[in-house]
Amino acid sequence: MVNGVERPLDLLNNSKGKEILLQLKNDKQLVGTLLAFDIHINIVLDNAKEIENNEAKKSIGLAFIRGDTIIYISPASTSAQAKKE
Amino acid sequence: MVNGVERPLDLLNNSKGKEILLQLKNDKQLVGTLLAFDIHINIVLDNAKEIENNEAKKSIGLAFIRGDTIIYISPASTSAQAKKE
Amino acid sequence: MVNGVERPLDLLNNSKGKEILLQLKNDKQLVGTLLAFDIHINIVLDNAKEIENNEAKKSIGLAFIRGDTIIYISPASTSAQAKKE
Amino acid sequence: MVNGVERPLDLLNNSKGKEILLQLKNDKQLVGTLLAFDIHINIVLDNAKEIENNEAKKSIGLAFIRGDTIIYISPASTSAQAKKE
Amino acid sequence: MVNGVERPLDLLNNSKGKEILLQLKNDKQLVGTLLAFDIHINIVLDNAKEIENNEAKKSIGLAFIRGDTIIYISPASTSAQAKKE
Amino acid sequence: MVNGVERPLDLLNNSKGKEILLQLKNDKQLVGTLLAFDIHINIVLDNAKEIENNEAKKSIGLAFIRGDTIIYISPASTSAQAKKE
Amino acid sequence: MVNGVERPLDLLNNSKGKEILLQLKNDKQLVGTLLAFDIHINIVLDNAKEIENNEAKKSIGLAFIRGDTIIYISPASTSAQAKKE
Repeated sequence: MVNGVERPLDLLNNSKGKEILLQLKNDKQLVGTLLAFDIHINIVLDNAKEIENNEAKKSIGLAFIRGDTIIYISPASTSAQAKKE
Repeated sequence: MVNGVERPLDLLNNSKGKEILLQLKNDKQLVGTLLAFDIHINIVLDNAKEIENNEAKKSIGLAFIRGDTIIYISPASTSAQAKKE
Repeated sequence: MVNGVERPLDLLNNSKGKEILLQLKNDKQLVGTLLAFDIHINIVLDNAKEIENNEAKKSIGLAFIRGDTIIYISPASTSAQAKKE
Repeated sequence: MVNGVERPLDLLNNSKGKEILLQLKNDKQLVGTLLAFDIHINIVLDNAKEIENNEAKKSIGLAFIRGDTIIYISPASTSAQAKKE
Repeated sequence: MVNGVERPLDLLNNSKGKEILLQLKNDKQLVGTLLAFDIHINIVLDNAKEIENNEAKKSIGLAFIRGDTIIYISPASTSAQAKKE
Repeated sequence: MVNGVERPLDLLNNSKGKEILLQLKNDKQLVGTLLAFDIHINIVLDNAKEIENNEAKKSIGLAFIRGDTIIYISPASTSAQAKKE
Repeated sequence: MVNGVERPLDLLNNSKGKEILLQLKNDKQLVGTLLAFDIHINIVLDNAKEIENNEAKKSIGLAFIRGDTIIYISPASTSAQAKKE
């Protein structure tokens, strides 16, 4: 299930074009399709939505997110899988 | 719809001269026309306005915003599009 | 109206000798005449005044302001113009 | 019991493929299998779960955690051992 | 009135041996005679006093103040002048 | 009593294999045997325990602690000695 | 009274072997004999004590204090002198 994650950034590389979830330091979450990232963990999402209490609260569209505001990043598919277990 | 965003800063490059929304760490938002940015994500907006609760609260005019106060940046057109969906 | 702002620091260069407004992270604002700045966005203002709720509260005179305490900087003339619109 | 920990990162190296616990600055904990880390202490966990008050609260699946949000990291086996003592 | 402030640190250079006021991030103020500073804006004051609500609250004597705790620095003479205006 | 502490890290070098106390920024304390440290003051403790109000609250076992979460580090023996004085 | 403080660190050099007071960002104070420091303002104190409301609250003994938790450092003798004035 987990192949080719030797360095942390490999997980982001494997997630390009897929939906990811960002947990931000301000207690909010963003979900969206990962378009791009850099070594500062700056992220560009497409179709981004703000999530609060597991509900989509606001559609943002394209968004550039500064890496230093992020706690963790998770591919949405693995999170969904985790919920089904 | 999303072309040429290979690195995060490409999104800012594509947004020059267009309206963008900045979500700041102090819970406020700024909207304005993107004039310039640098690798620290310092931003210059023209016709900047502070937004609170989705309402324009204060006109600021030209503004230099320090990158380390920003959570995310979104082209206003994609956000509007997102709302219509 | 906006000429020669190709990089963010150009806006500060164009504002030397003019009145600017600084929005600080501690929710206060300073206004004063921009005398000098550097790449850390450290700022020297002359005739600086602290502003709270749009009122001048305290005269500070000359002041060196550390860049890392600043959220945004706006030339006062453009802000005034914005209010008239 | 503790072999080969001459430098702090040795402990993370020895924990690859094993379950670890992350204490985050926002008072939450994550547990999961350590897949990868780097010198910034960015971490990739598999089968990550958020823990609050010693109970698993949310399954996250695969997760990239930014190092600057972490207080401490502990191999789960040594923590279990500690509880039995 | 303001001569030779081309770069921000010039203001500190001009203030050596004179009384300055430091506004700190923890809402306190220090006044004292500027003896030395460096590029991190670390400051040494002589005859330093803590000020709260415009009253001297505690005499500290000689003090080394870390630059990253400072919001702004103002020569006391210009502040006094400002008050008389 | 205090020999060979010419540079701050000498104190940590002298404490290897001995019990130390870490005061963390989140108001908690950890005690444990110092196994390793680096120039970022990242620390590895063995037999680590969380302390609150001078009582051991939770056994953690082996732990990697990020240096930027630490306020101070004290060899436990000198602290005990201090209490007896 | 103040000789040889041309650069901020000179004050710390002059204070080696003497009692100093550290004002920390968490509102606490430490006093103790300065044994060592480095350019990050990391400090080693001997016979360190935590002070709250001007009372010694806890003896810590030897302590390594991270520089980034410090607001200011004052030689205790100058502070005492200041009180007598």
